[in-house]
Amino acid sequence: MITSGLKLPLRQAKPRKYGITILIDNGVPLNFFKDTINSAADFIDFVKFGWGTSIITKHLEEKIACLQENEVEFFFGGTLFEKFLSQDKIEDFYKYCKKYDCKYIEISNGTIDLPNKEKASFIYDFSTEFRVLSEVGSKDSEKSIRQHSSQWIEFIQEDLEAGAEKVITEARESGTSGVCNADGEMRFQLVEEIVSSSIDLHDIIFEAPTKKMQTCFIEMVGSEVNLANIAFTQALPLETLRLGLRSDTFHLFE
Amino acid sequence: MITSGLKLPLRQAKPRKYGITILIDNGVPLNFFKDTINSAADFIDFVKFGWGTSIITKHLEEKIACLQENEVEFFFGGTLFEKFLSQDKIEDFYKYCKKYDCKYIEISNGTIDLPNKEKASFIYDFSTEFRVLSEVGSKDSEKSIRQHSSQWIEFIQEDLEAGAEKVITEARESGTSGVCNADGEMRFQLVEEIVSSSIDLHDIIFEAPTKKMQTCFIEMVGSEVNLANIAFTQALPLETLRLGLRSDTFHLFE
Amino acid sequence: MITSGLKLPLRQAKPRKYGITILIDNGVPLNFFKDTINSAADFIDFVKFGWGTSIITKHLEEKIACLQENEVEFFFGGTLFEKFLSQDKIEDFYKYCKKYDCKYIEISNGTIDLPNKEKASFIYDFSTEFRVLSEVGSKDSEKSIRQHSSQWIEFIQEDLEAGAEKVITEARESGTSGVCNADGEMRFQLVEEIVSSSIDLHDIIFEAPTKKMQTCFIEMVGSEVNLANIAFTQALPLETLRLGLRSDTFHLFE
Repeated sequence: MITSGLKLPLRQAKPRKYGITILIDNGVPLNFFKDTINSAADFIDFVKFGWGTSIITKHLEEKIACLQENEVEFFFGGTLFEKFLSQDKIEDFYKYCKKYDCKYIEISNGTIDLPNKEKASFIYDFSTEFRVLSEVGSKDSEKSIRQHSSQWIEFIQEDLEAGAEKVITEARESGTSGVCNADGEMRFQLVEEIVSSSIDLHDIIFEAPTKKMQTCFIEMVGSEVNLANIAFTQALPLETLRLGLRSDTFHLFE
Repeated sequence: MITSGLKLPLRQAKPRKYGITILIDNGVPLNFFKDTINSAADFIDFVKFGWGTSIITKHLEEKIACLQENEVEFFFGGTLFEKFLSQDKIEDFYKYCKKYDCKYIEISNGTIDLPNKEKASFIYDFSTEFRVLSEVGSKDSEKSIRQHSSQWIEFIQEDLEAGAEKVITEARESGTSGVCNADGEMRFQLVEEIVSSSIDLHDIIFEAPTKKMQTCFIEMVGSEVNLANIAFTQALPLETLRLGLRSDTFHLFE
Repeated sequence: MITSGLKLPLRQAKPRKYGITILIDNGVPLNFFKDTINSAADFIDFVKFGWGTSIITKHLEEKIACLQENEVEFFFGGTLFEKFLSQDKIEDFYKYCKKYDCKYIEISNGTIDLPNKEKASFIYDFSTEFRVLSEVGSKDSEKSIRQHSSQWIEFIQEDLEAGAEKVITEARESGTSGVCNADGEMRFQLVEEIVSSSIDLHDIIFEAPTKKMQTCFIEMVGSEVNLANIAFTQALPLETLRLGLRSDTFHLFE
């Protein structure tokens, strides 16, 4: 790259403590996966192998090797943890993560009925061997609406105290539950109450699958907000938003 | 792939009689095409070269060769048949299919005015040399609304009797006509009446371009429903829905 | 490709004076970029490196080299010009374009407050060394609504007189401002008044990111309308619309 002379917001280099971008792999083919990572590794901190895709991904080892070469961390989607748990096979989940030499795991209760206290006890147990990312929020848009900000904040704190390294706020791949309504609109008041709570924002990762959500979080929290569920094709477009190189955030960083 | 220990719904191996997945190629570039097929061939039964894309696809032979190596069948979109027919060039259509050594062809009337009886006579004629997939339903959302379930069922049966191997129900690449309304919502009652009719569901292939439609058909018919118009990037995500590895169908297969 | 026998609308060969297709690269990875260009170069006249993506694109030189081999022109998105201008660094913009040996540049005022007269003076200045594409229309959907057709036509003419080779009408990557409303619907009356004005339609390029917009412009202007902001995956699908090989434009070219 040639120096352009433009003044841009500063970004920490990898490995970053915040300003983190987590892509979601929904099962993209191997060469496209490598191509994406090789072209934009500077802007990608983690890849999440979405929900249970890893179970049927033919080239999972090759994908993981590519990430390791490019200093990108990975974990399996929380739904996989929930699937093993719902079949009473947590020991198999542990083995599965060990076989792939996972450094990070995600623990969530977005699909199954699991009280946050019990989720927190899994976080506590697994955090002795893994770095744990936990998730708060339901994948069901009706349940999501009934969950108030005080409860979100309480669950986030409970997870952090149990040993979660960071906590992810749910929005799905489509932005239709968790911090969003079923129609895809963000629940601004909820997000504002989380943002203005006593929780360190470096400890929260916001799922933000749409440009509108990404823009909104950058406006509210700043260029170095932690964002997850970024589509595999959106690593570079998101980085231009963080840097004020796109119309949507142009005036934030003049 | 490593055995996970999870209990998953059984799936027939290829070549399958049902539980079929048909991807639609809208003209993806050659290497991405190969990459997708090589990464997920186990979950792909057919590729449809959508509408008239084959006519201007530079590497059509290479794409077909890739499919043959991976035991994936192919056919040209029904709109191509209709284009030839509208120019009174059915003989050229026949030659075109022969040149590419097609085993399967699609015969439809989604765009042109062609009574089902006449469509059925083309099915009858072509089924002596090809395995015929026919399609019922209009690409026009206003015409679609006026087509009642009794007519759908009658046309499906007429096509099967004429020699169609399976019948595809229209929904377009976007899910906005045929068994869907213009706003993208599925016409549930229509689908339910088709599903509960006397037609063998192994003989029907439902176009289901969206996750919502795929989920709905899996709920109504089961893991091994036949689905078509699956976007080229969605072979693996669809398979996770069939296997209960994603939140949307998680509770169907516990 | 095998001759099909079908009668299709005639298309000029490259380099074309009209019937131009401009893809927008939002930062796709290198091999996918090459794959797309190699598979569909006949149908691609320009690639625009969208907004400020070029600044952080690791393999920009390789992408440009690929375009040159395939006789595809390129330019940087107008937002990049505006970013340099907003930082009072037009000299750096000039150097940046020279370093990459740009033949074409885009000059716009979709994001910053820059009266059209001043934009026109930049067009005038830069047109001594570059072929200039200018853009009319705001990226802000509220500002867009207040801009009437007489003003659009006046600005287009002012840009052409100042030396712009062609003028692009704004619609964004998403089709939600400029000639569109925030809800994605086209402002038909506005477009009709532009189309029926005294401006030579060969001099106008319409941003048309959605299939609906592409179809509409082909209906209004014809197969060889100039279209921009075509998604990187849509070069071939658009060409099938221009040729009547897809249901949406099937009946225009029988």
